Amino acid sequence: MEKPVVNILKIGGKLLEDEQQLQKLLIAFLNLDTAKILIHGGGKKATTVLRQMDILPKMINGRRITDAETLEVVVMVYAGLLNKKLVSLIQSLGGNAIGLSGADGNVIQAHKRIVKDIDYGFAGDIDEVNSQLIKHLLDFNLIPVFCAVTHDKKGQLLNTNADTIASNVATALSSNYQVIFNYCLEKDGVLSDPEDNESVIPALSHAAYQAGVKSGAIYEGMIPKLDNAFRALDQGVSTIRICGVDSFIAQKGTILV
Amino acid sequence: MEKPVVNILKIGGKLLEDEQQLQKLLIAFLNLDTAKILIHGGGKKATTVLRQMDILPKMINGRRITDAETLEVVVMVYAGLLNKKLVSLIQSLGGNAIGLSGADGNVIQAHKRIVKDIDYGFAGDIDEVNSQLIKHLLDFNLIPVFCAVTHDKKGQLLNTNADTIASNVATALSSNYQVIFNYCLEKDGVLSDPEDNESVIPALSHAAYQAGVKSGAIYEGMIPKLDNAFRALDQGVSTIRICGVDSFIAQKGTILV
Repeated sequence: MEKPVVNILKIGGKLLEDEQQLQKLLIAFLNLDTAKILIHGGGKKATTVLRQMDILPKMINGRRITDAETLEVVVMVYAGLLNKKLVSLIQSLGGNAIGLSGADGNVIQAHKRIVKDIDYGFAGDIDEVNSQLIKHLLDFNLIPVFCAVTHDKKGQLLNTNADTIASNVATALSSNYQVIFNYCLEKDGVLSDPEDNESVIPALSHAAYQAGVKSGAIYEGMIPKLDNAFRALDQGVSTIRICGVDSFIAQKGTILV
Repeated sequence: MEKPVVNILKIGGKLLEDEQQLQKLLIAFLNLDTAKILIHGGGKKATTVLRQMDILPKMINGRRITDAETLEVVVMVYAGLLNKKLVSLIQSLGGNAIGLSGADGNVIQAHKRIVKDIDYGFAGDIDEVNSQLIKHLLDFNLIPVFCAVTHDKKGQLLNTNADTIASNVATALSSNYQVIFNYCLEKDGVLSDPEDNESVIPALSHAAYQAGVKSGAIYEGMIPKLDNAFRALDQGVSTIRICGVDSFIAQKGTILV
């Protein structure tokens, strides 16, 4: 029997602050005739709230250091404000969303990152995704909406990168589903010319990706994202689409091959 | 066939700040050999965060006025911080909790309170509890943990009194379950002498309650809570226990009859 299809959509924190674009994207997402999962970031809003609360955002090499007071804000903003805003927005558009942190139903268990050179504080590295619970929710026609918070099953919540959550969920589900992992970024896909949004590469192989990194056409923030995505492809995810709002709607963008 | 039993436990915001008492209570709750639902308030912490964010808490007659910026904080604190703290604490104690706002799975649909004398802002009055979803989660051995946030199915989140959520959930489930509604307050039950915590009334009838209000033994904050509870009893809830942490653990307190 052929596996059923699930579409996973990962969106970043910036898109959450553009209601028009967000709504356009979600309408197209809800129109997909498959099981659906949404995963969201939210670092920008967390930084805003940290500032409002007079807590200095702490970053090293672009990564957040999650001390105890920062964790409280991260949990409030990701699992509270942004997750529930998305859930209620999807509900208003006719989709039956249910918001989840990794603690809910023990759906994503992690451990506090081991300290090597840098102490990232309450940052979580994922141990296990409870794909049985996710399948159960999908079978009940629910749309799980994951925020970037996990837990260690010992009572500690942990801040966890949303891209990592997305690729772990995608990989974990691939034994039961044909997973289409839609990675929504700002550009309409991977560009052959970073200055030209029309230069989307329709199909990107791992060799072409490595050549692009070498030539400088693929750079900075894209590199960890694409590394992450190619790893998911190796681990059984059926389709990985790198896209923007418009190319998601058109079901175009860059497909990793 | 006899209906299965579900224990609903309502706890207030104050208890959430006393980790030792909270943990004692949750251990006893998790030991109950029935389906379980937890419902929590959290007004105290919301007030703290409002102050930290330089937002003036607005109250009329002890009730919060929820303007747009207050709603953001309420959603962050109730659905984010407190809900996920409780879920991860229960997970650490071996219970499989899943946190829910009313928007999640459209589990509690409400409407913005109609303005009469006072405009309460984004306060929600409940229209419907989706008992089918709750039953489905309970059947999967999950422990739903409700925070005091609902939505209107049009994209608007709403601040909703946790006592009201608790009695609505209890009532909605009573067609499929024998509902034991445990209402955890500061005292060990309804007291015949408000100064004496040993004077717990083991069984309180509606007539005795009205006499207690008249004599002044039952007063202020207890009155809306008991009105709420007696209404739930009239509407099919099997057992209502008014208790504190210790009397819940001893399965004593005041039973409404």
